[in-house]
Amino acid sequence: MTRSALPTLTLAELARRLGARLVGDAERPVRGLATLREAGPDQVAFLANRAYLKELPDTRAAAVLLHPQHGEACPVDRLELDNPYLGYAAASRLFDPLAGREPAGIHPSAVVDPSATLGERVEVGANAVIEAGVSVGDDVVIGPGSVVGADTVIGDGTRLHANVTLYHAVVIGARCILHSGCVIGADGFGFAHDGSRWHKIAQLGGVVLGDDVEVGSGSSIDRGALGDTLIGDDVKIDSQVQIAHNVQVGDHSALAGCVGIAGSTQVGRHCLLGGGVGLAGHLTICDGVQVTGMSLVTNSIHEPGVYSSGTGAMANAQWRKNAVRFKQLDDIAKRLARLEKGRDA
Amino acid sequence: MTRSALPTLTLAELARRLGARLVGDAERPVRGLATLREAGPDQVAFLANRAYLKELPDTRAAAVLLHPQHGEACPVDRLELDNPYLGYAAASRLFDPLAGREPAGIHPSAVVDPSATLGERVEVGANAVIEAGVSVGDDVVIGPGSVVGADTVIGDGTRLHANVTLYHAVVIGARCILHSGCVIGADGFGFAHDGSRWHKIAQLGGVVLGDDVEVGSGSSIDRGALGDTLIGDDVKIDSQVQIAHNVQVGDHSALAGCVGIAGSTQVGRHCLLGGGVGLAGHLTICDGVQVTGMSLVTNSIHEPGVYSSGTGAMANAQWRKNAVRFKQLDDIAKRLARLEKGRDA
Amino acid sequence: MTRSALPTLTLAELARRLGARLVGDAERPVRGLATLREAGPDQVAFLANRAYLKELPDTRAAAVLLHPQHGEACPVDRLELDNPYLGYAAASRLFDPLAGREPAGIHPSAVVDPSATLGERVEVGANAVIEAGVSVGDDVVIGPGSVVGADTVIGDGTRLHANVTLYHAVVIGARCILHSGCVIGADGFGFAHDGSRWHKIAQLGGVVLGDDVEVGSGSSIDRGALGDTLIGDDVKIDSQVQIAHNVQVGDHSALAGCVGIAGSTQVGRHCLLGGGVGLAGHLTICDGVQVTGMSLVTNSIHEPGVYSSGTGAMANAQWRKNAVRFKQLDDIAKRLARLEKGRDA
Repeated sequence: MTRSALPTLTLAELARRLGARLVGDAERPVRGLATLREAGPDQVAFLANRAYLKELPDTRAAAVLLHPQHGEACPVDRLELDNPYLGYAAASRLFDPLAGREPAGIHPSAVVDPSATLGERVEVGANAVIEAGVSVGDDVVIGPGSVVGADTVIGDGTRLHANVTLYHAVVIGARCILHSGCVIGADGFGFAHDGSRWHKIAQLGGVVLGDDVEVGSGSSIDRGALGDTLIGDDVKIDSQVQIAHNVQVGDHSALAGCVGIAGSTQVGRHCLLGGGVGLAGHLTICDGVQVTGMSLVTNSIHEPGVYSSGTGAMANAQWRKNAVRFKQLDDIAKRLARLEKGRDA
Repeated sequence: MTRSALPTLTLAELARRLGARLVGDAERPVRGLATLREAGPDQVAFLANRAYLKELPDTRAAAVLLHPQHGEACPVDRLELDNPYLGYAAASRLFDPLAGREPAGIHPSAVVDPSATLGERVEVGANAVIEAGVSVGDDVVIGPGSVVGADTVIGDGTRLHANVTLYHAVVIGARCILHSGCVIGADGFGFAHDGSRWHKIAQLGGVVLGDDVEVGSGSSIDRGALGDTLIGDDVKIDSQVQIAHNVQVGDHSALAGCVGIAGSTQVGRHCLLGGGVGLAGHLTICDGVQVTGMSLVTNSIHEPGVYSSGTGAMANAQWRKNAVRFKQLDDIAKRLARLEKGRDA
Repeated sequence: MTRSALPTLTLAELARRLGARLVGDAERPVRGLATLREAGPDQVAFLANRAYLKELPDTRAAAVLLHPQHGEACPVDRLELDNPYLGYAAASRLFDPLAGREPAGIHPSAVVDPSATLGERVEVGANAVIEAGVSVGDDVVIGPGSVVGADTVIGDGTRLHANVTLYHAVVIGARCILHSGCVIGADGFGFAHDGSRWHKIAQLGGVVLGDDVEVGSGSSIDRGALGDTLIGDDVKIDSQVQIAHNVQVGDHSALAGCVGIAGSTQVGRHCLLGGGVGLAGHLTICDGVQVTGMSLVTNSIHEPGVYSSGTGAMANAQWRKNAVRFKQLDDIAKRLARLEKGRDA
């Protein structure tokens, strides 16, 4: 992206769009965001975390987004908001060079089945494939190389980046963002065993994504065995995540990278799953649960709060000794109880 | 998928195909499967797990697949089988709307090298690519956007969904199902270190998949360094799985989502690896081993049975205290031994 | 790959190219590598690990790459080098049937934007897509179905296998190898929460890969929020790896399969991360750190060395007892301290 291609705004315009109070030069043009430390004189910085307060005095930014309480300490122009991190988020979207792009229409190399219905201002990238019966809303972008299976429905304003795969009869809400390599609607992992071999269970359900869902690169959301796999509104899913058949994830939950959720588990609303967390199948996780990175959850959770498992990393020589003792732990506990009994006797 | 598009069968026909005993209206038409709770009057339900027995009296299904011992309790028509779960699996395939589809032939946008040989009734999707020397059996489906590398062999009846990638000189058996985003035959992770930097070891082996193998979305099976990576018959591999070079997986084993197997490890027949399980390299895992979710296996296993590692999730405040103690565990054990010695003295 | 297509060399030529001392028939033709056990009379084997010394006497190889100290024990012709494993690596590249392939040019089905600039001897595969402003160096191969986003830069000699996705404004160094299904430059996982829902933070940074980087199949490297995600020279990344926004990985480090690194963490040079390792966000890992498989690192590491976490797998019946005790560990430690105090009193 050449620097010159970045959107340019005046500070007054930026303040207006962010709902911020400007203290400084209204006409000053800015065209990008950066950290306090790295911002140049045509860029805006932000202060959303006290840890970076020490970098404020030396910033060379054109202006800083910050809370009014730090206004006095700011050596340059400033934009005051109650929630500077939200302000940064809003500003990042204003300066996104991809945001204002005109839709490029249907690329001649794309293969769109004549029975598919496309809304207004839809873009379909080179070598993308849209199968029969697909319904695409307005302002949708289908990236190059993406494949949309038969009878799938895509809501208004949703964007599929390049090389996304949607299977047949999947429902994607409005304003979703699906990153490259993600696969939605592949068969859930269902087999019946006859004592000697596996028999496939056809996965007859679908997947329904709510509105404002984001799915990271290379993530998988499998279709249901009978009913649907359900992802609520405003659910954010990072890269390399695996969501098995008939899982339900409640509105506003966020799943960090490499999370795996086994079949039929229900995750509540406003949950946060750290990177690499694993949830066993058929669990119920209530609203407001946070699970720290790489924890394994094998039982349902009925109280909001923070949950963890595992052991933190330590030097290998120390770890080896302790890990061996873990295998003796039940024995250690019994021996301790015997000693206690002896003392009390 | 519109409801009307689902296959319709009479109960008599369904009983015949499942080898079940029908007690009820032979002419009744049914056109789909659902759970006991959700089935409507044109759908078939099943009872394969006693936990759902309480839902049997209230089902509105047209008929229920169940074991003869529960026949009397069934309020609607019934199909009796000794293994209702196997019956459900078979019925799911009968009602699969994709199952009876006619092959669509070679899409004009597909790029098929003239030296490739294709069997009868092969379907090649839009923008798929088949390179030189490829051999494709009868009744194979190559999904849109999939790429089949030079000299690769695909057995009869195998299906590649959209955007699958097979490298060169890979061998895929008959009746396999490869889901979108999976990659078979990429280079194994092999490098020699000269003390300061890495030198690539060309991965000259291949990958051989047996018959009836399923590979989930986004999974990777790497090619061997010299010999081949070998996946046996009837092996079922879920999504987001990583199988490194020269691994061998025995017939009928099943690997759940996010499993990782390091190089040259041999997994036996009829093994079950839970979600997120990691196997270190150069191990031998005997037949009939089951490893529970997210366990790490760093030693070979020579006895069939169930194996586990890790610690289950608990409230973070409790976990923090215990995790700190884990780092003192060897010390705790030694102190306990000293106390015991003192008592015995 | 038919056997006859493999490159053929004389032992003299092979010795010359490897810098090895040949003891044997200079004119003998060889055309492939294999293990000591499996090599046939037209293949070269190698001995790089004492564990295989017992297989040397029975080898049927044409010649063996080995250290001079084992020369006498070799029953066939031999190529002596100080580092036979490096010799094997070099030989593997000489015998790689893909190595000497002539570039096939731009496939007519590829979609290359007229504003893209391509170097000499560039190959673009079938149905690949190269967007506006892309710059591709000399001797680059873009595999079939791969998509290169606008303004991305690819250095000389780099190879993208099939179905790779590069987002816009990503920089890839020289001689990199990117495997199928990997995605470089997707949005980092950045959202601001307003107390009830998420607001997307546009990811305005990029990704920069150094020279000689390899990225495995299905791996993700996300673009930075503001600055770039940085991967150093000679970094080797296996399959199914997730690297979050603004991570930095130092030169010559190697990341095994299924590793996950959370945002803004800095990994030093010459680090080795075992399979499935997770690094929390905002950490600093110094040079020369090795982390064993499936360990979770939640604190910065300032000393080179080997680090581990977790517990090794054991029989489930034994594990269940010990895992329960883990949840009592703090209590156990306190009771032990009380006993010790009682004894000393």
